[in-house]
Amino acid sequence: MVKRVAVILAGCGVFDGTEINEACAVLVHLSRAGAEVKMFAPNVDQMDVVNHCEGNPQTEKRNVLLESARIARGKVTDLAKLDVDAFDVLIIPGGFGVAKNLSDWATKGKDFSVKPEVEKVIKSFHKADKPMAMCCISPVLAAKVLPGCEVTVGHDCESEKWPSAETAKTLCEMGCKHVNKNVTEAHVDTKNKLVTTSAFMCNAPLYEVFDGVGVMVTEVLKLV
Amino acid sequence: MVKRVAVILAGCGVFDGTEINEACAVLVHLSRAGAEVKMFAPNVDQMDVVNHCEGNPQTEKRNVLLESARIARGKVTDLAKLDVDAFDVLIIPGGFGVAKNLSDWATKGKDFSVKPEVEKVIKSFHKADKPMAMCCISPVLAAKVLPGCEVTVGHDCESEKWPSAETAKTLCEMGCKHVNKNVTEAHVDTKNKLVTTSAFMCNAPLYEVFDGVGVMVTEVLKLV
Repeated sequence: MVKRVAVILAGCGVFDGTEINEACAVLVHLSRAGAEVKMFAPNVDQMDVVNHCEGNPQTEKRNVLLESARIARGKVTDLAKLDVDAFDVLIIPGGFGVAKNLSDWATKGKDFSVKPEVEKVIKSFHKADKPMAMCCISPVLAAKVLPGCEVTVGHDCESEKWPSAETAKTLCEMGCKHVNKNVTEAHVDTKNKLVTTSAFMCNAPLYEVFDGVGVMVTEVLKLV
Repeated sequence: MVKRVAVILAGCGVFDGTEINEACAVLVHLSRAGAEVKMFAPNVDQMDVVNHCEGNPQTEKRNVLLESARIARGKVTDLAKLDVDAFDVLIIPGGFGVAKNLSDWATKGKDFSVKPEVEKVIKSFHKADKPMAMCCISPVLAAKVLPGCEVTVGHDCESEKWPSAETAKTLCEMGCKHVNKNVTEAHVDTKNKLVTTSAFMCNAPLYEVFDGVGVMVTEVLKLV
């Protein structure tokens, strides 16, 4: 039976949208597994538009759905129309867009909230006992919506390889169990049917990020 | 010896920039091969900015270098600064940006010209006997700059699988030898050290496009 996967995008570009390499890795691995993929994004303005050469915000507006369409080659649907009954799996790639456009983690940290339409989708998949996968910074969404869940964002001890290890500690403060995993591994929370991997939270060669996302995709499809 | 590869981007998004999945495929395969990669893009306005949901141009301006930085995670350099001596290989992924921002193929077809700074780079790599790889629509650049070269853009007989087969005929009219290849194959023009693959010229599952780009990358690295 063909597995139907909903992928939520949050724009196009690591600093204000979905991390492009992570999204493409998700899509390649889903394609190889023969999954049927439909992409979604919220039809709202981005929190900001970042100059990706210099890292500073620009004075313009962009729409999350329209920019996500650049990754999706036009085939992306308003997140408000996501019907959980039509899918077996939910996947949310990372990138700052998750912390800016799917939640306000970027400005509020631990006391953040998940955007209502994103929260509704995650809760609905969880209630329907359908598996979900999240990578990079996206596991913070699960941490908020599914209290006490198990996640990985890589390692919890800061180093050159793990510059964002602080995030793991914050997730623990929020009541999650954080499990240290290498970039080519994923953690499976069998109780919550939640699969996570660190992706670009690790300062690793791109192919290792790609392979880690591959493990995440394989594991989440197994849970269907 | 580590192989040094220059990748030319042309924006970010299939309809007005570099095809994102092709660029990411190039980068994953180069990473796995242990190559040292540096990305470049022209510091000019895009020909247009396309609404990727609807396919029509929007009334705004974007810069090719800044948008390319979304794929490159900030690490992209003005194409004008590309020093051919510092690289062993040149790779140009596809997308309409190649036909809009690296040349004017999109508006002129067969009678198009390649932007001078792109032409200069291709000629310099060729003169230095250094290999190049191009996929999707990018082989039109080689067809113009290296008259009589051998390329593939897939198949030359139109079908649902090969909606852009007309391009192959145009390349022949320009004096090239077009070689029919499947999406998971690449053609190697050993005389010109030029490797090409069809990528999204083929209506194929994403993983086949990814694998074809992988063959292209492997073959071009072999020619160093």
